[in-house]
Amino acid sequence: MDRLKKQIDFIVEIDKLKHIFRQSVLIGDKRKENSAEHSWHVGIMAMLLKEYVQGSQVDLLKVMKMLMIHDLVEIDAGDTFAYDEEAYEDKEEREINAARRIFNILPSDQAEEIWELWREFEEQETPEALYAASLDRLQPLLLNYFTEGHTWKMPGVTSKKVYDRMAPIKKSTPELWEFVVGIIEDSIRKGYLRR
Amino acid sequence: MDRLKKQIDFIVEIDKLKHIFRQSVLIGDKRKENSAEHSWHVGIMAMLLKEYVQGSQVDLLKVMKMLMIHDLVEIDAGDTFAYDEEAYEDKEEREINAARRIFNILPSDQAEEIWELWREFEEQETPEALYAASLDRLQPLLLNYFTEGHTWKMPGVTSKKVYDRMAPIKKSTPELWEFVVGIIEDSIRKGYLRR
Repeated sequence: MDRLKKQIDFIVEIDKLKHIFRQSVLIGDKRKENSAEHSWHVGIMAMLLKEYVQGSQVDLLKVMKMLMIHDLVEIDAGDTFAYDEEAYEDKEEREINAARRIFNILPSDQAEEIWELWREFEEQETPEALYAASLDRLQPLLLNYFTEGHTWKMPGVTSKKVYDRMAPIKKSTPELWEFVVGIIEDSIRKGYLRR
Repeated sequence: MDRLKKQIDFIVEIDKLKHIFRQSVLIGDKRKENSAEHSWHVGIMAMLLKEYVQGSQVDLLKVMKMLMIHDLVEIDAGDTFAYDEEAYEDKEEREINAARRIFNILPSDQAEEIWELWREFEEQETPEALYAASLDRLQPLLLNYFTEGHTWKMPGVTSKKVYDRMAPIKKSTPELWEFVVGIIEDSIRKGYLRR
């Protein structure tokens, strides 16, 4: 029962991800989105957009696992706004400490598996990690577009930075790139995003 | 681009699931949980508790897909409280109409796949559907236990009804049943749940 107790403790601990709020807001009432909802949204997107992956060779189960766990470190480290350069300076250190505490609530074999998935996601080298990262970029792009550029209007955000942020999409799902460019250019025209 | 447009329209439409509130409350601040967060939570649970599945033979990718989409019909049909017998009377009809509208936003092959996953989940006959259903029961059991029986204190809920509701766990993951019984009996002792 010790093994099950650890698994249940972890499942209870990660309920906290529902309290971690991102900068993105929901399309309907513009309340801030939390990282648990975001993780679900990208999980379902992974199911639907796989056909656009370069070469179409991707282990969808691994992608979905990655997306379920990719933001868990935020329980301790908080959500780091993609365009906040100062906060990015110690992001890695904060997140590694968080991963160490949170993942180790699990039995060691499962802690190890989650750690490996998270590292792979962060390193963005495998096709699975690149596809997961591209969904993690595309989802807030859509929320921004349909809320008149809510987070894009924050200080320091420019279309150049948004294009840089979207780079994994170009690598992983090049067929979607034209769509992304269309959204960004239309957003500039509409005043949602500074050129 | 017509195919991609349909996929994006669907991805934008399902943002609404984040506005569908359940009866369960979160462990921390006791605000109501929404169905998107819940879907994420059971998705990650599927990864962690697979070893308890009777015979251990289950297609985890299918289970995770099912869990991502299992509550989408609530966007139109609303969340039906598990212990509200009156609301259950027209639940199926409301949900079938919802599925027809929402899933058909997708290209037809993907609409078909989601429809099949949802029907399979609802019918609770395959090992995948039973495992998914058992997680869908276990997750609110945990939230209830750690919020002193928040939804269990509502009118009409008894331990007999909670035991009935948990039946898929006994079928799919019998090794977890002892744990579930322990939680329910302890909840009765502590006054979280009426015998």
